[in-house]
Order: sequence, then structure tokens, then C-alpha cells
Amino acid sequence: MNARILELDDRTIKRFFGVDTLAYQGGALEVRTKEMLGLVASMVLRCDDCVSYHILQSKRAGVSDAELHEVFSVALVVGGSIVVPHLRRAVAFLDELNAQGLPPE
Amino acid sequence: MNARILELDDRTIKRFFGVDTLAYQGGALEVRTKEMLGLVASMVLRCDDCVSYHILQSKRAGVSDAELHEVFSVALVVGGSIVVPHLRRAVAFLDELNAQGLPPE
Amino acid sequence: MNARILELDDRTIKRFFGVDTLAYQGGALEVRTKEMLGLVASMVLRCDDCVSYHILQSKRAGVSDAELHEVFSVALVVGGSIVVPHLRRAVAFLDELNAQGLPPE
Amino acid sequence: MNARILELDDRTIKRFFGVDTLAYQGGALEVRTKEMLGLVASMVLRCDDCVSYHILQSKRAGVSDAELHEVFSVALVVGGSIVVPHLRRAVAFLDELNAQGLPPE
Amino acid sequence: MNARILELDDRTIKRFFGVDTLAYQGGALEVRTKEMLGLVASMVLRCDDCVSYHILQSKRAGVSDAELHEVFSVALVVGGSIVVPHLRRAVAFLDELNAQGLPPE
Amino acid sequence: MNARILELDDRTIKRFFGVDTLAYQGGALEVRTKEMLGLVASMVLRCDDCVSYHILQSKRAGVSDAELHEVFSVALVVGGSIVVPHLRRAVAFLDELNAQGLPPE
Repeated sequence: MNARILELDDRTIKRFFGVDTLAYQGGALEVRTKEMLGLVASMVLRCDDCVSYHILQSKRAGVSDAELHEVFSVALVVGGSIVVPHLRRAVAFLDELNAQGLPPE
Repeated sequence: MNARILELDDRTIKRFFGVDTLAYQGGALEVRTKEMLGLVASMVLRCDDCVSYHILQSKRAGVSDAELHEVFSVALVVGGSIVVPHLRRAVAFLDELNAQGLPPE
Repeated sequence: MNARILELDDRTIKRFFGVDTLAYQGGALEVRTKEMLGLVASMVLRCDDCVSYHILQSKRAGVSDAELHEVFSVALVVGGSIVVPHLRRAVAFLDELNAQGLPPE
Repeated sequence: MNARILELDDRTIKRFFGVDTLAYQGGALEVRTKEMLGLVASMVLRCDDCVSYHILQSKRAGVSDAELHEVFSVALVVGGSIVVPHLRRAVAFLDELNAQGLPPE
Repeated sequence: MNARILELDDRTIKRFFGVDTLAYQGGALEVRTKEMLGLVASMVLRCDDCVSYHILQSKRAGVSDAELHEVFSVALVVGGSIVVPHLRRAVAFLDELNAQGLPPE
Repeated sequence: MNARILELDDRTIKRFFGVDTLAYQGGALEVRTKEMLGLVASMVLRCDDCVSYHILQSKRAGVSDAELHEVFSVALVVGGSIVVPHLRRAVAFLDELNAQGLPPE
């Protein structure tokens, strides 16, 4: 679907996607830390698709399940009980990834 | 002011503050990583007081300025231009901390 | 699914769930009032799962449909037209509860 | 300042203000309950001016401080630690009201 | 479903719906501009149902696809990457409208 | 202060600012329409600094006060009464601009 969006031929949108990619590249912080930052931000903003994406990328970058659980706990405390349904879906998504293995990139 | 809040003698509020403290203690993730998680979450939720607090705690936990800037950049990309005024205040707060040194805990 | 979350064995998450339960127990305010508070907060924050949960708990605590409609109306005015799709789903959920009777606790 | 806004002579804005007034009139729910609903909604949406307004109106409608504290606690649990700075300002505002007495309507 | 909501016989809700209709009527601004305002507001607030509705109304008011893409791009920059999943669904909805033609009013 | 932020020498932040500038340039939509889009988005997201900025840019692009009031009214209806304090500050800012004339660019 991102391919469909980039077909729109809108320069602002295309360049935004470029900046989005750049933000998660390693620099002073490692990729794994940046993915956890993206995950906690997505969780407090309550975006399920974004949460799933960053869980997958975090696993690919070597973040352990115990570490992911702690990211979830920070999101829950910062964002409150309104985060609970998203936490449920995050745990279900992680269980599924663990059962099926990571999909090829 | 937290002292004043705890004086309210409301069990839910008191216990919430306890959970909030617990969330940032080291575990699978180090304190420094958790403080950066709290910072990025505060920034996308656009809470200036929370952002200042987590910048201070991050510095105390040894997070470098270059690392903080990358936390800011993830917050900006996830949260959009609406984050810009909070980014400005975060940079001003960090400049001030760097000029004056960290306050005693 | 809450059972699955509590299995994660994360102390922060477990204790957060304890505080969440405590918040809705009767005190200076009756349970029915607290459930209506949880409902209006969930509606302005636009969390459908949370809205359904608090409608069910409100009905169990004896809140009438006329009272629920007034909670909805406060949520709509505070939160604006962005709340409308959530109001639609809330009314559909309430209609369903009224048609089928409350599920056992 | 509301007077200045109504001077704009915009029918949508004027009628919105009418609906806003209507929402808090007693009906199936008493005025005091509706003010507490407005308060908790304002707190989770993190609007300090709205929080102060509803604290004042709640006090005028006879809501006790112990009841207000429980409204605060529900807001804190639903909205998370991001609500804390607003809770601080709410408690300070309530302390001030209690010290000075309610202003004339 | 709006018919079902209006059956609730709640004056606040009914009058809110009246104000909502009024807001999008032509005045100093044309209907097409107001629909684009409703669209960008819905997109940054991340309400898919509202986004689809305003895309449809914008098309009915003669907004071109190139203009809609620019509305999307402003929403993306203001709201950040958290808007991306909603942008995807907006583009898919617009593709569908273009494939099937506008439904009768 | 933007100058200070660009000094941080963070590529993601710098490029985000570039995309932000690009988003408001004229294309299929005129600059004046894009500024009104930025204004309504800022108002429903309740960012006072962003609202003031887009009011100023809208005036510079020739948007009339009557048009601005209609943008405000759409923001109020979409975002609800929580927008009221921001509407007040927007009207006060516009009054000030009208009294003092636009500042030089």
C-alpha cells in the first residue's frame, strides 16, 4: 500500500516517507533503541498498525520479549488505561510472531 | 507539589504514583533507555512538564545530548509539526541545563 | 485476554491493573457514578472497547438508558463531531445489550 | 472573552455555545453529576482552563472535595501519567478556591 | 445509524447534529473549502469514518484528486507518521470511489 | 528558535523542516487554502503557537477575517468544547494583529 501512496506523485508525501525512514537509522542511538522509541510513541498515540510494525522491526533488531514487555509497561503508565486494548492487541501480535517466526523482510 | 497531591489521601492516586515510579526502574531495560522511552512518549503527547522532567532524568542517567537529539527527531517524525513548539521548548530547556549544570536530586 | 497480559509477569503492568480496579470501587462516589465517569472519559478519548466495557458496567450498576444518553451528549459536546462514529457504535452496543440482556459477570 | 467570541456574529459558533450550555442542564442526571462528567472529560483531554471551570461549577453544584478527588483519580488512571501536571494544577486551583471562597456567579 | 441516534430523543445530541450541518454550509468560504477543512481535521484526529465521509463530500463539491492529495500531505506533515495508516485507508477509499463512481446522495 | 533547532545538526530534524515548508507551497491548492488547512488542523490539535502562526500566514496570504471565523467554526464543531480556550486565544491574537498591523516577514 505504501507503493500505492508513493504513486500519488506528491512531493511532500514522498519526502515525508524519506524522513520517516531516516529517523530510524542508527546514529548516536542504535536501531534497536530507535525501534523501541517508535513503539512506545505508537502505543501512547494508540495506533495498532504502527505498534505491530514497530514490534516486528524491534524483533528484527534483536529486542527480546522481556524488553518489549517493559516498553509496553512504560506506554501503559504514561498513556493510562485507554492504552489497555492496544496492549492486548500488541501481546496477541507478539504471540503470533513468536508462534510463526518472523516473516521475511 | 507531588507532596501536596499525596496529602489528598486518595489510595488510587497514591498507588498510581507508586506504579509510575516502578515503571522507570531498571530491569530488562536500563534506566537510561526507560527515561528515553518516557521522553519520546511525553513529546508525542505534547506535555512540556513531562518532557523537561524526562530530559533531566535522562541526563542524570548518562544520556548524551546527541542521543537526546535523536529521541527528539523520532518524536518529531511520529508526532508531526504539531510537536515543533514542544521541541523548541525542549531544546531551550536542555540548553539551560547545560549552561547551569544539573540541579541536585 | 487480560489473563494473557497478567501472565507476562511484568510487575508494573500487574500493579497498574490493580490500580485500575481500585479506581472504580465505591468511595465518596458510588460505583454507578464512577462508571459514568469512565464512560465519558473513554468516549472523548475515542476508545470503542473502553466505551462498550463501561456501558456494560454502568448497566450492571443500575444506570438507566436515559442517563447513558446524557453521558453520551456530554461526551459529544466536549469532544466534538469526531466522537460521532463512536457514539454510533455505543448506541448500537447498547441496543444489542438491551435486546439480549446483560451477559453473566 | 466569550462575549468577544459571540460578537464575531458567526451562527455556527453561537449555536455551538447554546448546545454547550444545554448539555450541562439537569435532566435524567443532576447538574452535579454532569459537571463531574465535564471535569473528568476535560482532565483526560488535558485542558487546564476547562478543568478549572468544571471544578468551580462542581463546587457550586455542591460536589465535595472528597468527590472531586475521586474524579481526579479516575482521570489519572484512564489518562495516565501524562495527566499528572494537570492534576497538580487542578489541586492548586481547588486549594485556592477553598482558601478564597467561591467567586460570585 | 444517524436516524437511530436522533430517535434517542436527546435535545443536546439533536441540536449538536444541527450545528454540525450548519458548519459545512457555504458562507464566506465555499462548501468545497469547508469540506477540505473537515477532511484535514478528521485526518489529523485520525478518524477513518470521518475521513471517508469528507472525501465523499469533497468529491461531490468538485474537489479534484490532485487537491485531495495536497490535503492529505498537509495532514501528514502536521500529524506525523501516526497518520500514515489513515492515509493508506484514505487512498484506498478514494481509489474505490473513483472505480465505482460516487454513490447517490 | 528555529535557527537554534537547525544548529542541532540532526539530519532528520533538518529534513523534516524542509518537508514542512514544502507542504504549504502553492500547487493544486493555493497558498491561502493550505494555510487555512494548517490552521484548522492546529486548532483541533489544540496547539496555540501553531494556531497563531497559521493565522498570521493566512492574513499574509489574503484570507479575510470572515473566512478565518468560518475556519474557527469548523474547528470548534469537529473538536468540541475542548477547543473553546484555544478559540478564545485565537480571537485575541487576531484582534491584536488587526490593531497593530501585520509584522514584517
